[in-house]
Amino acid sequence: MPRPRDSAATRRALLGAARELFAAQGYERTTVRAVAERAGANQALLYRYFGNKETLFAEAVTEQALAPLAEGPPETLLERLLAATLDDSPGAAMFFSVLRSSGRSADAVRTRLGTAYSAAFAELVDTDDTADAAVRADLLLAWLLGIAQLRSVLRTAPLLDADDDVITAHVLRAARTLLRDAP
Amino acid sequence: MPRPRDSAATRRALLGAARELFAAQGYERTTVRAVAERAGANQALLYRYFGNKETLFAEAVTEQALAPLAEGPPETLLERLLAATLDDSPGAAMFFSVLRSSGRSADAVRTRLGTAYSAAFAELVDTDDTADAAVRADLLLAWLLGIAQLRSVLRTAPLLDADDDVITAHVLRAARTLLRDAP
Repeated sequence: MPRPRDSAATRRALLGAARELFAAQGYERTTVRAVAERAGANQALLYRYFGNKETLFAEAVTEQALAPLAEGPPETLLERLLAATLDDSPGAAMFFSVLRSSGRSADAVRTRLGTAYSAAFAELVDTDDTADAAVRADLLLAWLLGIAQLRSVLRTAPLLDADDDVITAHVLRAARTLLRDAP
Repeated sequence: MPRPRDSAATRRALLGAARELFAAQGYERTTVRAVAERAGANQALLYRYFGNKETLFAEAVTEQALAPLAEGPPETLLERLLAATLDDSPGAAMFFSVLRSSGRSADAVRTRLGTAYSAAFAELVDTDDTADAAVRADLLLAWLLGIAQLRSVLRTAPLLDADDDVITAHVLRAARTLLRDAP
């Protein structure tokens, strides 16, 4: 049995290798064996930690998508999440395709991300009404989801060609009204 | 040959019948024969006007989705489109499933709707910069698309359970900032 500290390091290495390979090669062409090899771990450990390829994938994209939460103060969370939303790397495109797909793994990913980000945004809403704060936070997530759809999935103009800074400025301005102003 | 006036009426009757049957039974279970029968027209005419079932379907959902444009003044367009977005009828659910699907028909539907609504919203933007107006209009469409996703397609709380009036009030407030305020 590996010691606990090694086991956390192995888990991290496996997730990192999974993210890189999934982003570079796509889901179908990535094998569990290649992920384990890249991480310098054995396949048995990978199966023990993650169950199967689908749950490894779900875990890898979820961890990546939750990263902006921890990367700075709550006040700039929307900027960080917008930057991730406007990211046009293959990894981001793959993530958004998961987010819109059906199936139990995708549902689980959406639930975890939705819950975490809703709670974080609800904290920023200027109201004591927690139900209303949750609705406003969800509306903001809906906006990011819609922007990601048009830019990364459907790839339609004018959002596809618009400057990130222009989009960010407009969304931040409107989001401030949504979150802070009294209805 | 039918006279032009009759031909327009037949076309309308076919589209109306198609919308009703597609909404009630779904795409797969609706036959071209049943649509023609319900409209009191013959199948040959249906094929002449619409080509095939897929293009009939695309035309039916597009016409329905464009209806809010003509139903009132530009100033209340967002209210009307929000009401259509929050509509949870089977017809609306079917429409949103088209909007997020891939394939040439869905692309054509999105392009026509996106162009029409972008132009209409861009008229409401308080700027002389037409490129910037187009981006802001597209951001608003992205928001509606995201709201429809969470409510009609993914059906997740809290947006699923939130009151239509609450959602409408929040979106209108923030949209005003997006469209009217100077950046």
